[in-house]
Amino acid sequence: MKKMQLSKAFTLIEPGPVVLVTTNAGEKNNIMTISWTMVMDFTPVFAITTGPWNYSYAALRKSRECVIAIPTVDLIDKVVGVGTCSGADTDKFEKLGMTPVKGRHVSAPLIKECLANIECKVIDIVRKHNIVVLEGVAAYFNSSRKEKRTIHAIGDGTFIVDGRKLDRKKMMRTRIPAGV
Amino acid sequence: MKKMQLSKAFTLIEPGPVVLVTTNAGEKNNIMTISWTMVMDFTPVFAITTGPWNYSYAALRKSRECVIAIPTVDLIDKVVGVGTCSGADTDKFEKLGMTPVKGRHVSAPLIKECLANIECKVIDIVRKHNIVVLEGVAAYFNSSRKEKRTIHAIGDGTFIVDGRKLDRKKMMRTRIPAGV
Repeated sequence: MKKMQLSKAFTLIEPGPVVLVTTNAGEKNNIMTISWTMVMDFTPVFAITTGPWNYSYAALRKSRECVIAIPTVDLIDKVVGVGTCSGADTDKFEKLGMTPVKGRHVSAPLIKECLANIECKVIDIVRKHNIVVLEGVAAYFNSSRKEKRTIHAIGDGTFIVDGRKLDRKKMMRTRIPAGV
Repeated sequence: MKKMQLSKAFTLIEPGPVVLVTTNAGEKNNIMTISWTMVMDFTPVFAITTGPWNYSYAALRKSRECVIAIPTVDLIDKVVGVGTCSGADTDKFEKLGMTPVKGRHVSAPLIKECLANIECKVIDIVRKHNIVVLEGVAAYFNSSRKEKRTIHAIGDGTFIVDGRKLDRKKMMRTRIPAGV
């Protein structure tokens, strides 16, 4: 897992993959699966929608830190597994066979098995809408990993796997931010 | 373009496709391309990040209405075209050969060529974060369309096309909302 340029970290979230969010508020590591994410700025700033119905929310509020980890299609059953049990009564890292890796900037762990990880600070919580605003402070990418296809939740229990890539860099050259 | 169940409309946005957002504040129709979207509730409620840098933002604030249209891969060059010119000096429907269709609940038009359209009301604007909160009030899906693969922007001028679908309905049955 090597460091990647922070200015490119938004490209991990912009395509809308299912992500895992880890937290640690001093006691134990936890993970949640979420699809309700949004890029808000290239710096990068991200939004996630979550609230008291998620066990991780209390840890997110208390620690004001988390890691967004990007899983790939080979991890789909772990991703669904994380999303269908609760940290209230389960050590999800242990149950699902995932490996926490100590980060540099936040108490929440990176996930070794994932394609990429972004260490994040909570910079605001918009209570009215259950939006947690995150600033990425460091990003890591495992380029030695063969499987790089992410998955996208439809919301009905099915998932779309990344297909082929189309290049429109030339048409879009005036709209791509510096450093990307 | 037939009506679809509003309770399923979030499934159009949850996988994170690039979308087109149309507006009409009384003068003319406009379209913008955005990837910075998020589901916030199943009812459905959506967030988009946009601000004064987008010409459509003024129309969105004034009319407090829009349509989210879902394009498919065959429309990629129109989608990039919409995103690389401005409604300030361009009639994007005309320039890109797209057809506005009158909606039932909002002044903004549906886009005939798209796979799906969601008529939306602006229910809040979180100024501090440039987040516009939308509630979907009606949704339409063109099931006669052969091409149903959407596209996901990476943010560097490349796009990922939807690949194959994986079914985890059984594992997730307790987490799927009613009516989906």
